[in-house]
Amino acid sequence: MAEERMISWVESANSERTDFPLENLPFGIFSPSGGGTPRIGIAIGDEVLDLRGADEIALLDTLPEEVRAACSDDSLNRLMSLGRSAATVLRRRVTGLLLAEDRSAEHHLRPLLTPMRHVRMHLPAVIRDYTDFYASLHHAENVGKLFRPDNPLLPNYKHLPVGYHGRASSIVVDGAEVRRPWGQRQLVPGTVPVFEPSRSLDYELELGFFIAEGNRLGEPVPVNAADAMIFGLCLLNDWSARDIQAWEYQPLGPFLGKNFATSISPWVVTMDALAPFRTGTSVRGGDDPTLLPYLRVDTSTAGLDIVLEVSISTAKMRQQGSAPSLLARTNSLHLYWSLIQMIAHHTSNGCNLRPADLLATGTISGPTSDSLGSMLELTRRGADPIRLASGEMRSFLEDGDEIILRGYCERFGAVRIGFGECRGVILPAHHP
Amino acid sequence: MAEERMISWVESANSERTDFPLENLPFGIFSPSGGGTPRIGIAIGDEVLDLRGADEIALLDTLPEEVRAACSDDSLNRLMSLGRSAATVLRRRVTGLLLAEDRSAEHHLRPLLTPMRHVRMHLPAVIRDYTDFYASLHHAENVGKLFRPDNPLLPNYKHLPVGYHGRASSIVVDGAEVRRPWGQRQLVPGTVPVFEPSRSLDYELELGFFIAEGNRLGEPVPVNAADAMIFGLCLLNDWSARDIQAWEYQPLGPFLGKNFATSISPWVVTMDALAPFRTGTSVRGGDDPTLLPYLRVDTSTAGLDIVLEVSISTAKMRQQGSAPSLLARTNSLHLYWSLIQMIAHHTSNGCNLRPADLLATGTISGPTSDSLGSMLELTRRGADPIRLASGEMRSFLEDGDEIILRGYCERFGAVRIGFGECRGVILPAHHP
Repeated sequence: MAEERMISWVESANSERTDFPLENLPFGIFSPSGGGTPRIGIAIGDEVLDLRGADEIALLDTLPEEVRAACSDDSLNRLMSLGRSAATVLRRRVTGLLLAEDRSAEHHLRPLLTPMRHVRMHLPAVIRDYTDFYASLHHAENVGKLFRPDNPLLPNYKHLPVGYHGRASSIVVDGAEVRRPWGQRQLVPGTVPVFEPSRSLDYELELGFFIAEGNRLGEPVPVNAADAMIFGLCLLNDWSARDIQAWEYQPLGPFLGKNFATSISPWVVTMDALAPFRTGTSVRGGDDPTLLPYLRVDTSTAGLDIVLEVSISTAKMRQQGSAPSLLARTNSLHLYWSLIQMIAHHTSNGCNLRPADLLATGTISGPTSDSLGSMLELTRRGADPIRLASGEMRSFLEDGDEIILRGYCERFGAVRIGFGECRGVILPAHHP
Repeated sequence: MAEERMISWVESANSERTDFPLENLPFGIFSPSGGGTPRIGIAIGDEVLDLRGADEIALLDTLPEEVRAACSDDSLNRLMSLGRSAATVLRRRVTGLLLAEDRSAEHHLRPLLTPMRHVRMHLPAVIRDYTDFYASLHHAENVGKLFRPDNPLLPNYKHLPVGYHGRASSIVVDGAEVRRPWGQRQLVPGTVPVFEPSRSLDYELELGFFIAEGNRLGEPVPVNAADAMIFGLCLLNDWSARDIQAWEYQPLGPFLGKNFATSISPWVVTMDALAPFRTGTSVRGGDDPTLLPYLRVDTSTAGLDIVLEVSISTAKMRQQGSAPSLLARTNSLHLYWSLIQMIAHHTSNGCNLRPADLLATGTISGPTSDSLGSMLELTRRGADPIRLASGEMRSFLEDGDEIILRGYCERFGAVRIGFGECRGVILPAHHP
């Protein structure tokens, strides 16, 4: 049964290829082209709707006072803290305002729309804590084989979603340039390390998800209550310097190999918009260990069907005017652990999550060679360089390379929605 | 040459045993007993001076406008962001106001003093990123021997200060109760894990330090510029569930074994106050590897001579009215890596530190059996339980145990200063 597409008076929202039809309406923070202060926007087709402006002309008057107040902030933190229902009522109201069948608000709203290409996007929220997981079995196996050929998958992997704390200060938004880091590398085991620019710079294709209402310290979140804590999702590129990481990570985990930059896409796609793309998960096999009760979920609904792509555009490609080259296409269905399991595990010891905290899945790789979410896996740690469409070879990223993440949902019977893009170009390392 | 003690008209500040003489003047956030809103205080003897109040009656008028404005905040963030010089001029002004030789301000300031026992202390700052290091060689060796008898010290240890990102949301202040966490534990290698309350709950005796001005993303801080980035220090207890940690920590490091709580003391002791206690470091031996240039420091001044103590008060001891029992006395001189090396390393890849970010040293253990900063080391992971003064035995912490950290500086010729206390009592785990 095909869902009937909603039609908007914003023409570009009615395109079958847009990431932002009326069915999506993700939230972000933008500065209008006129140079105004950062504010909350909703993406609709090729345009951004100014929510503060909509409230100022009384178009949000039917909403609860606290939701209206949150619409005038310069970050999504307060809106997120109101819980998922706030986003639900807000999106429902904006849907009504933008529907073609009732054009009464069009005259007032047109001046509040800015073409996406003319706005500057910012981080959607002030992120206080950021946690990255390792939830793709294929990725964990691929990486494990490279670093521990005799022991690729560690014994805890299928019992709990392995995760670690990331750095919040260096999270940047789509478009921000990423400086190649210096760091300690040990060229040959047993020799003294050198300090020089990383030679194994990599991307990681991930999904991030923002927390809505949090939990109190000492109060775990049961797995069946975790879904309501997710405000929405974005794309996330966990830039990684493999050489720095390999030398530093024992025994306390990744640190400088990761914390020089993490890029996210600017639009937060809500769980309501993703509802048609919930589906079952099938990555856990019959031979896998029985889960402890606090991690057991309804596997028929715990999955999300989101197509994820990573492409590269080298300096040469841009010079030649040629299109970016696709490196991999994968899907969030390949996650071994679901988002709600990550939340249940994260809070199982009483750890508190707060509104706008960011969690991420870890690199999402599929089972095939064209669905690997990092260059580490694609080139087998540089041992098998890949040839790009431009004829250039890559073991890891070179200066000037731009990495472009995309995500979208397409299912028979549902209107396509997308995440937009998450881009970042590599700048050369500083001179010593 | 003995420093001449400054005398204050606040009598309790003149005691030889006070942690808070005029020479200290640490900053903290307190709520006055009358129930006012949280505000910045300075500890003096047994009293807390209300800085906002002092500004309101024009006693800080000689200070720069931005410093005065920061004094009216409800956290130290803005004051920290103004850099260390802001604290310097502020402490200098307050010193003048509190000196016995000029009592002109006493009449106005008396109403702004509240006995310490009547105020409620809060976290000194909104901490956005928290990083914990592993900078004590003795601790790393002791722990390494327990977990990897054949390979106690990993090859990177003497080349870089190993660190990892901690959880900011669960940092609590002195006095906050700590709930025993549930978690996955693997009782016997190769068997399935169980989910139950931790049976290996531990403390870790550490120093924390707050960042003043930060650095921009992509711009490393040279080691000789790092000192100016430290606003001040506090005591820090990195509560740890050893059983949870042992099962989860491969390959990405500690997570739920640590992030259920971290306690800090409420008073931030400034680097100016600590200046008389700077000294040389001698932990690096002649056989140790040559440091890479970005980590080389003047070892004659990179050390801090801070005595650190950890004591335990069990429920039985409190019932019997007996004093807490000392578990260990150690010193920050035992750190293999200095604070400025930690900052230089943390930013060497361009990672940005922001004002009020918290960094910590990791457990500080000395070379002797009475200077071990965790129970893991004291009892050799529970294999050798210790007997307390009360006759009770401990392998790890029991419900009702209170851990008390203290720190102070005593050197011939200098006036003694202290850090106050960092306490936390263990609450039983939640029922399932």
